[in-house]
Amino acid sequence: MSMQQTAEGMTRPAGRPRSEKAEKAIIDATLDLLGEGIGVSELSIEAIAARAGVGKTTIYRRWSNKEDLVVDAMATLKPPIPLPQGASVRESLVTYLKVIAEESRHQRTRCIMNIALSDPDRHPRLAERFREVALEPRREIVRAILAKGIETGELRGDLDVDIAMAIISGAMMWQTKWVWPGEATEARLPERIVEEALKGFRQRAAEN
Amino acid sequence: MSMQQTAEGMTRPAGRPRSEKAEKAIIDATLDLLGEGIGVSELSIEAIAARAGVGKTTIYRRWSNKEDLVVDAMATLKPPIPLPQGASVRESLVTYLKVIAEESRHQRTRCIMNIALSDPDRHPRLAERFREVALEPRREIVRAILAKGIETGELRGDLDVDIAMAIISGAMMWQTKWVWPGEATEARLPERIVEEALKGFRQRAAEN
Repeated sequence: MSMQQTAEGMTRPAGRPRSEKAEKAIIDATLDLLGEGIGVSELSIEAIAARAGVGKTTIYRRWSNKEDLVVDAMATLKPPIPLPQGASVRESLVTYLKVIAEESRHQRTRCIMNIALSDPDRHPRLAERFREVALEPRREIVRAILAKGIETGELRGDLDVDIAMAIISGAMMWQTKWVWPGEATEARLPERIVEEALKGFRQRAAEN
Repeated sequence: MSMQQTAEGMTRPAGRPRSEKAEKAIIDATLDLLGEGIGVSELSIEAIAARAGVGKTTIYRRWSNKEDLVVDAMATLKPPIPLPQGASVRESLVTYLKVIAEESRHQRTRCIMNIALSDPDRHPRLAERFREVALEPRREIVRAILAKGIETGELRGDLDVDIAMAIISGAMMWQTKWVWPGEATEARLPERIVEEALKGFRQRAAEN
């Protein structure tokens, strides 16, 4: 970890406050351990404290339980994505999917997501909170892009928006996770998904 | 397990041959242990043998390693699906997705899939073989339905078939796994996905 070791009472080095550095070290330690293949059930506050070079109480001051810490750690891998301001629905959706594609290229991220979310039946609160903090904000982006497209008349007024969201995000996940996993994923995947999907989503009148 | 205990040398009971019963007990034990949350890395041949009530050599006579056994056990949860013979692409795709929806309702199946496939980077051969024996045959069904639809003129000749497959299966997985997990999944989900997707997949002339 990158936190500078200073004896208590010494002048603090410039930079972030100590607590913020400790927090980052704890988050990094949690992600490292998950990335090494330790399941959420096996993960212990002791192991995280040891890896982060902090005391257990430092962790408990900030997180009252392991699942909350895991959610916060995983959320750092899914930072907020700004709402794309494309000139068309096509452009905005492609921009969005390219960010998602870029994220899924990181092996550590993929690995941690797989492990931490592998067992929603055993860790229902974790899966639920992860959905809230990391997935819902992203679903709202797709919803906003589609809603704007309906408003401007670019998309059909009777579009089944929930299903359209599942088509865009689901096709992306399916293809990167199952069919072309990892490096093999084709570079034009976002464009191909959006173009095929929009053939059905668009207003008839707006077409050819 | 259901295998009848008979002393060696006694008349064998009627029914399946002994080796087939042992095989079933081994498969069941493997699925039970995975379903209880034991990861593939932690799963041991010893534990499977103990649970199945067989010796380790009985297992090794049939499977030379743990990953092959796990693949065979998981494949029993994804039996072959017959090619739907619907009167239309819509009917065939809906029939197919209803089978998938029914499968994903079983909590044990969901749980085992999640655990066994949670870590493709640690068990690449397992993920690869599972794709071969369980996922590819299903992808071929969707491909065959779409190919027939193109042939009959029901679907566009320039349909991006790989992407169309990802749209159908991905939307289903996305919605059941993330958005409406478990029981909450809406009964008409297969119809809604297929209807929305086909709006783009269909020949223009065949519409309205």
